[in-house]
Parts: sequence; structure tokens; C-alpha cells
Amino acid sequence: MNTEPDLSNPLTLAQRLIRCPSVTPADAGALDVVQQALESLGFTCRRLPFGEIDNLYARRGTASPCFMFAGHTDVVPSGNDAKWTHPPFAAEAIDGVLWGRGAADMKGAIAAMVASVQRLLTEQGEPAGSIAFLITGDEEGMAINGTKAALEQLAAEGETFNHCLVGEPSNPTIMGETIKSGRRGSLNCQISITGRQGHVAYPERAENPIPPLLTLLGRLTARVLDDGAENFQRSNLEVTSIDVGNPTTNVIPGHAGARFNIRFNIAHTGDELRRWIEAEAALVALTFDGEVACDIHVTGEAFLTPAGEFTTLLQDAIEAETGRRAALTTGGGTSDARFIHKYGPVAEFGLVGASMHQIDECVPVADIETLTRIYTRILAAYFADTPA
Amino acid sequence: MNTEPDLSNPLTLAQRLIRCPSVTPADAGALDVVQQALESLGFTCRRLPFGEIDNLYARRGTASPCFMFAGHTDVVPSGNDAKWTHPPFAAEAIDGVLWGRGAADMKGAIAAMVASVQRLLTEQGEPAGSIAFLITGDEEGMAINGTKAALEQLAAEGETFNHCLVGEPSNPTIMGETIKSGRRGSLNCQISITGRQGHVAYPERAENPIPPLLTLLGRLTARVLDDGAENFQRSNLEVTSIDVGNPTTNVIPGHAGARFNIRFNIAHTGDELRRWIEAEAALVALTFDGEVACDIHVTGEAFLTPAGEFTTLLQDAIEAETGRRAALTTGGGTSDARFIHKYGPVAEFGLVGASMHQIDECVPVADIETLTRIYTRILAAYFADTPA
Repeated sequence: MNTEPDLSNPLTLAQRLIRCPSVTPADAGALDVVQQALESLGFTCRRLPFGEIDNLYARRGTASPCFMFAGHTDVVPSGNDAKWTHPPFAAEAIDGVLWGRGAADMKGAIAAMVASVQRLLTEQGEPAGSIAFLITGDEEGMAINGTKAALEQLAAEGETFNHCLVGEPSNPTIMGETIKSGRRGSLNCQISITGRQGHVAYPERAENPIPPLLTLLGRLTARVLDDGAENFQRSNLEVTSIDVGNPTTNVIPGHAGARFNIRFNIAHTGDELRRWIEAEAALVALTFDGEVACDIHVTGEAFLTPAGEFTTLLQDAIEAETGRRAALTTGGGTSDARFIHKYGPVAEFGLVGASMHQIDECVPVADIETLTRIYTRILAAYFADTPA
Repeated sequence: MNTEPDLSNPLTLAQRLIRCPSVTPADAGALDVVQQALESLGFTCRRLPFGEIDNLYARRGTASPCFMFAGHTDVVPSGNDAKWTHPPFAAEAIDGVLWGRGAADMKGAIAAMVASVQRLLTEQGEPAGSIAFLITGDEEGMAINGTKAALEQLAAEGETFNHCLVGEPSNPTIMGETIKSGRRGSLNCQISITGRQGHVAYPERAENPIPPLLTLLGRLTARVLDDGAENFQRSNLEVTSIDVGNPTTNVIPGHAGARFNIRFNIAHTGDELRRWIEAEAALVALTFDGEVACDIHVTGEAFLTPAGEFTTLLQDAIEAETGRRAALTTGGGTSDARFIHKYGPVAEFGLVGASMHQIDECVPVADIETLTRIYTRILAAYFADTPA
């Protein structure tokens, strides 16, 4: 009996991956599963550990162009296991549905990537270039010691790619709907205003931090950041919390805080938004006898891979298998593509994301097969007619 | 040896009162001390208990006019007893200073009231009218079962007074500075806005309650309520807390709350302010797919005892003993006078309040003597030349 998995069948590999409970930052053997499969397909593999995170870089061939698949084997926690219809790490395939944490985000897609390479080699022989995999373990966590650190290391060594496809679940409801060809940037800010506590009947002896906070939030939310940009929706600022925590009705509090997030398109940079926020805070501080502080973190810049030969190649392959012309979109949250775009053109296409991060995450087995066929078509077309 | 206390000496009585740890709602024997003293001066005493609060009403004589002293024997907690220089309920008199919880607010003043009646009777004989005491036990607590309930009961029985003097510590720093001849009203409001939680990257799927909260607070705080009124400072709205409690930077919260207090002068009524707040909330609710609720409590209406014969009588007595012409003021917090003014003219004059509600509450023994002399002069003048 042959114990080698059939690498042309992505379901088997997806199940083996889901059965590794690789909740960030744990790896739980998931990268070993990928590495073993890629090595059997002729890839040279190496680990790129940073801190408590392990990462895998694999490349098959040295010729140019280099097509890189990127993804992550870490998953979000399963939550209350008792609420799952099927255990989250059992990877049960029942009536054509694969259940488990990571099925959609994104162990199913990694399995499809591996299987697509197997099929390419079987059907087309050696490609006119090389194929790389960057599979990391910190996408759902702090996103510091995974893709970001690995790419910095690889770039320092002169290791490059020409185009990258990330296997994030890009389709909202059905295979073939959307390719993510860019992402909005994201900025988090914590405002902290310190005044002077006092009795509400004697406001002249206190310095209430709430009015300057209201003024600052009013100025920040009043600005229309833009009316959208090519391929992007409008930039948006959301105040997510305001916290004073003063339980006493007759006391003016001494401190007030608020948090907001900006999702911004390519009309902005994190630095420009940071300077704007700091200037607004400085204006408000001029009117107030206390401290106004803003702690700003830009967790990702906006980026766009413009529509062109590469995105058309992806759309053609998807349409051939699904009959749908995938839209190029930039909505939603962030992904590791925010790090990858600095080194080369990147797009994202994977499974249907409807169940990701939820109880009962699952994908149709047929979607994994469809994705494998799409990836195989992409590889074949890429090496047949390399985009500029 | 005579165990009867010398009622002409207010210090002795003040010490006996302070040694009763009558922290609201406890009485701890304090009213017994007052009742025993008043009975020995010929007062008819009765208790007016409501709920867990005991109150004392005493009257000497039935003739008109009736001059009523009002005060409370309950005190605020002592806090950390270890931080007191002298134990809070020991009532130590050291180097001319009486230490203890309630020394200023307002057991010292109650002792001065009782002693002033003893001196009046000794020096002037029977007054041409009657004297009443309303001493209650819920001024520092909920203020429901004390003065408010007692006055309702007395009014229902037809028991009335012509003028009332409350012994609250009305002087900020030195005896004779200020008479409180009115008080601002106070309104508390809790705003509660419920929207729909969601992911910050998809604001169109959520309904963030923070923007309507900011709009509502902005509208409420932008209004200049007035420019002051006769004998009153400007009405003032203070936002005292805003609370969302959302710890997650990428989540739009489902609920936001805020609290504010309005101290208002006689240019306003609680009802009018309530209608204004509700109308502003209704306007904001029109722009928002969620719920906007305002829980409003008017804890006191603004009132003023106009300057006239009664206030002049008080000022003359104070000036004769202190050399200072007390200003008629309406600032600061609320007191039980907010209930009394509905039944007759009321003013407040007592000790120096600088240490009230604090660790190491204390008053100079000489101030208690001065206050006793002032109260005696007030009684003498009142019955010699009753104000209209």
C-alpha cells in the first residue's frame, strides 16, 4: 500500500493541513505537510523562522520568470468547539463539503496550489521559468514575524519573484466573483486627553477633557477624505471607541480617550494621514489646559496592482473554469499582500470566504477542485506567455 | 454632679453629635441627642421616619410667625480612618479646633442652633412667635426619605413655617462671607444609542452609534443656555462620561453611552430642559437607523429667595458678629433647601465649608461660638421685628 499522498488530489492535502491545529502562533506540523509535498515535486525548501513563528520558502528552478504562490498555514482560534457541527480540526468531508478551521482561510487554497503544480508538471512538463511558495505562520497574528520578515530576509539575499498570487478567500459568495488586485491601507489611532478632575458644580476649577475630545473627533470625522480613487471605494474614518469610565454624575473626569481606524485608498499615505491627525490634535491642544496625545499606528499602506496583462491572465483562467469574469476589487480588510506588493505585482484569488473566521468554517469540495484547475491554468498560461 | 449638658455651650453638643457615627443612612443616636436637648428647652418633638431614614421635627410654641431651623445629622463616610490626624468620630477639641466628620457639615451648626435658642430664652424670654427644628437623616444620601418626605408629611398636616434658615456650611473660607439665598437646579441625563455592530472595513454593513452620539453631544454643548440671571451665574452643561468599551480596533461597536449634568439658574426649569434634550435626541434619531434614548432626572429646580427684609436681617446679624457683609450667592452644589423653598422663604448660613467631605474635617471652636451668637441675634431680631 502506497502511503504517499496523491498530490493531484487537493482534498487529501487540505485535510492533512486542517488536522494540524495551527492556531497562531502554533505551527502544529502544518509546514512539514507542505514541505514534504513540495519536496516530492522537486522544490528546494528552507525554513525562515522569526521569533516564535516558523515560515517556509520553497522554489522549483532558478530560471526567470519566477511565479510565486503566497499563503499562510496559521488559522484563527476555533472558538467554542462544542458549537461546531463537525469538530474544527477533524477535516471531515461529508456530502461534498469539507469542514474545519482553515478550510476557506486558507489551507484549502494551499492544497490547490500544490496540486496545481503537480498537474502542470504532469500535463505540461517543465515550465519555462520557476515556481516559488512562501507559506507563513503569522497572518492571523501580529503579522510581524511571518510574510513581512521573510520577504525582508529573501530580498536581502537577492531572492526575487516576478508575479505573486495570494490564496486568500477572495470570493464573497461564489467561485469566480472577485480578484483582489489591491488593498486599502489601515491606520489606528488612540487619542488620550488629560485634563483636571473636579466637581461638576465648579467647572471653573476643573479642566474637562471631554469637550476637546468632542472637538477633535468632530474635526476628524467632518473631513471627507476623498470621493474614492481608481479601483477603490472612498477612504473612511470610523471612531470605534470612546472611553471615560466616570461613574459619578457630579464629578468632571480627569481623563478621556478614544480610538479610531482609517481605511484609506491610494489617494493617501499613512504618513500624510498621521501628519494631518497630529496637526488637528495640536490645534485642539491650543485651546485646552491639558495634554492631548495621539498614538498612531499605520498597519498597512494602500496599494494597487493596476489592471494589465497579469490581471487579464488571472481573469481569463478564472472565466474558463467558472464562466465568470472576476471583478478586480480592493475592498475589505488587510492581508499579507500589503507586504508583498513592495517587492512585485501581487493579486489575491482563492476560495469563497463566507464562513472564514466563524464557527463551522467550510468549503465545497468541488470549489477546491475548481480552484486547483484555475491555478493550473494560470501557471500554464503564465509560462506559455509570460506577462511583461 | 450635674450630668445635664450645658446647652448654652455648643461645643459640648457638637462633640456629642460627632461621636454618633451617623453615616447615611445610619442615625447612630444623633437625633436622640438633638431631641433630648430640644425637649429640655421646651420643644415638642416627634419623629418622622420614612423607609430606613429617621427624621426629627420639633416645635416650641404655636404662635405665628414660626422661624424654622433646618439641618441634617447624617454625614458622608469618613473614608480611610487611618489617614485622619484625629479619629473621625472622636470629636477631639485640640488647640481651639474641633476635629471630626460632620464638624462643618453640619453638626457644629446644629449645636449652634440649639445653643442659640437657649441663649435667646435666657436673654430675651419668651419669643413673640414659635421656633421649629427640622433635622433630617438623608441629605448626604438619596435625599428622598429625609427633608423632602418630612416636609410633604408636615404640609399635609397643615404644619407651616414663615421663614427657614438652613445650617449648611455656606462660607467658603471665613465666617461671614456668604449666605446662600438660592441654588441652581440640577439635571442628569444618560444618553444611550444602539446601532449595529460590524467590521470596520465594511462600515456600510454596520450602524456605528458613535457619530450620532458625537452629533447629539455637539448640539447639546454648543448651546449657550443663558448669560446668567439675577444672583446666578450662567447655566452650564458638563459632559461627565462617554463610554463605549470596545477594545477591538477593527470592530465597529453596537452601543455607545454618555452622561451629562446641567446646573441651571432660574432662567430655566427642569421640564423645559428635558423637552429641549428630547427634541435634540429626536432630531439626531431621524438621521440614524438605530435607537437614541435619553434617561433624564431633574434632581432639583433652581430657586431664589429674593433679597429683602429676611436676607437683610440675616446680613445685619452676621455683620454685627463678624464685621463682614455677607454676599447673597447661589453657586455650588445642591442642598435640602431645594425642597424647603417650595413651602416658604429659605436661606442658608452656617460654618466654613473648606474641609467638608474630606479627610480631617474640622472647624475652629471659635467659629461655632460666632455662629451661635449670629443665630441668637437672628432669632432676637426676627421676633423683635418680624419681616413681612
